[in-house]
Amino acid sequence: MSVYTNITLQELEGFLKNYSLGALLHHEGINAGIENTNYFVTTENGRFVLTIFEEVGFDRLPYYLNFMAHLSDHGMPTAHPIADLQGNYVLVLKDKPAAIVRRLEGQNVLTPNARHCMAVGHALAQIHLLGNSFNGMQANPRGIAWAERTAGRVSHKLSPEDQQLLEQEVHLRKHPLGLEIPQGVVHADLFRDNVMFKRHALTGIIDFYYACNDYLLYDLAVTVNDWCSDDSGELDPELYAALIKGYRMERTLHPREAEIWEYMLRAAALRFWLSRLHDQIYPKDGEITHIKDPDVFKRILQARIRHTPELDS
Amino acid sequence: MSVYTNITLQELEGFLKNYSLGALLHHEGINAGIENTNYFVTTENGRFVLTIFEEVGFDRLPYYLNFMAHLSDHGMPTAHPIADLQGNYVLVLKDKPAAIVRRLEGQNVLTPNARHCMAVGHALAQIHLLGNSFNGMQANPRGIAWAERTAGRVSHKLSPEDQQLLEQEVHLRKHPLGLEIPQGVVHADLFRDNVMFKRHALTGIIDFYYACNDYLLYDLAVTVNDWCSDDSGELDPELYAALIKGYRMERTLHPREAEIWEYMLRAAALRFWLSRLHDQIYPKDGEITHIKDPDVFKRILQARIRHTPELDS
Repeated sequence: MSVYTNITLQELEGFLKNYSLGALLHHEGINAGIENTNYFVTTENGRFVLTIFEEVGFDRLPYYLNFMAHLSDHGMPTAHPIADLQGNYVLVLKDKPAAIVRRLEGQNVLTPNARHCMAVGHALAQIHLLGNSFNGMQANPRGIAWAERTAGRVSHKLSPEDQQLLEQEVHLRKHPLGLEIPQGVVHADLFRDNVMFKRHALTGIIDFYYACNDYLLYDLAVTVNDWCSDDSGELDPELYAALIKGYRMERTLHPREAEIWEYMLRAAALRFWLSRLHDQIYPKDGEITHIKDPDVFKRILQARIRHTPELDS
Repeated sequence: MSVYTNITLQELEGFLKNYSLGALLHHEGINAGIENTNYFVTTENGRFVLTIFEEVGFDRLPYYLNFMAHLSDHGMPTAHPIADLQGNYVLVLKDKPAAIVRRLEGQNVLTPNARHCMAVGHALAQIHLLGNSFNGMQANPRGIAWAERTAGRVSHKLSPEDQQLLEQEVHLRKHPLGLEIPQGVVHADLFRDNVMFKRHALTGIIDFYYACNDYLLYDLAVTVNDWCSDDSGELDPELYAALIKGYRMERTLHPREAEIWEYMLRAAALRFWLSRLHDQIYPKDGEITHIKDPDVFKRILQARIRHTPELDS
């Protein structure tokens, strides 16, 4: 994400008085991501991340932060939110919702190997199983209604061929084939830039601000599309096999999930093609902006239409 | 603590199936402490500590573990307990209560300087303030009744002079001068081996298994006696001033606390003189045993009787 909201040292020190974190030692804006304003914040009590939510409403935040706490409490490498002296995770800073979470160790791996992919698949399945004991409920804000609405806003900027592809895929999403498959809490954005490693150990899963209740298979499809695609959009067989193997170490796939695997990979690719098209056509004001290339997901979508490998259940 | 309960690799792997921590990568017994059995446990999901409680009853453990979670949730460098798949912190291993907590970074500092002492004083006051929002309630198991009982069990092994000192101090504890001072949740054992640092940053506070509701000043006295005493038992003026300064950065001391400071330092010294005498005279069976020298606390007690510095309120 980019730094959209600037805060002064005095504003940050004032904000920290709500917490029991000791004196501020260091802070810096984080130049990554596209949705929120993030700062690394180091105090006497440790290393934290402050997020100012630019577009996420107050009402949705407890779901995200409680789920992060739930996963961390169960030993997942996720960032535990920090409660203020009144016990709240969500506060107000510069008239926007804001939260502090623990900072995790490790680095993104943008060119993963099979071991990284297996670890990610395994962690994703752990998240899915731990969702069973989480009480929150929130619909996917990037679901079918959003896809249809967004397609209507971006279509006129596309070539005739792309318009036709978009129309076909949105139509497909609106007419699912009967999805009697497991649902639960999904991360919905488990891209390479949301996972951190130290060597091959997975040390951090971040950015749960698209988490929602949806099909677990959708989450697997989002993850596979990002982690296992080559530059042409095709799946790398070794990375793909490793990620699925890691996932299946923890959760058994249902036969029905294997049947609709192609549908789900295409739905997952469509979601990011659409959001990237939207961000490209309607850019936000910001100090630093990172528009991600929509064509990456057009190629992934086209590759899945050409060929989708089996998902052995 | 020492390793009192041996577990096999198979027993540990079986136990870990209760959690969502991934595969076991490494484990080793920790040769430190005197009360419980501890193992370092590394899994795919990170670094943890497994504690098997040798003498602490099931009924007391939720208080300790919930307080550790409470502090960690508020950003303190304390070890968050890990919930099993059913949401429990306390499980059973080899017929004893057992829990897994996150492993913290850093090293003990056995020869602290003033910066370390200031950080410890500051952290102690933060713990005291966060206790205000903690709901649990548990009496001090090392209170006056315990002191009197233990004195009765160890006295016959002491020299006539030490018997007289012990009798005098137990009498003093039984007849307090009116203790209208702040109470709350206290760590009650914040010795140098329960705090970890990376350089001068305080990165870990562990071993909350004596935490209880008691006078906050008692906790400060326990901490000062261990961190600020030299080999003769006398307080090092620089370390003492730094610890008190750190504490007062977070919590204002009441005038009445200053008045009974000598009483409290002597009560805190008596508690550890007694427990060390007891452990020396009635040693426990264990694979590895660490009996700590009771005379350290006899000297501290005698030094406080000779002279106690002011506690400016």
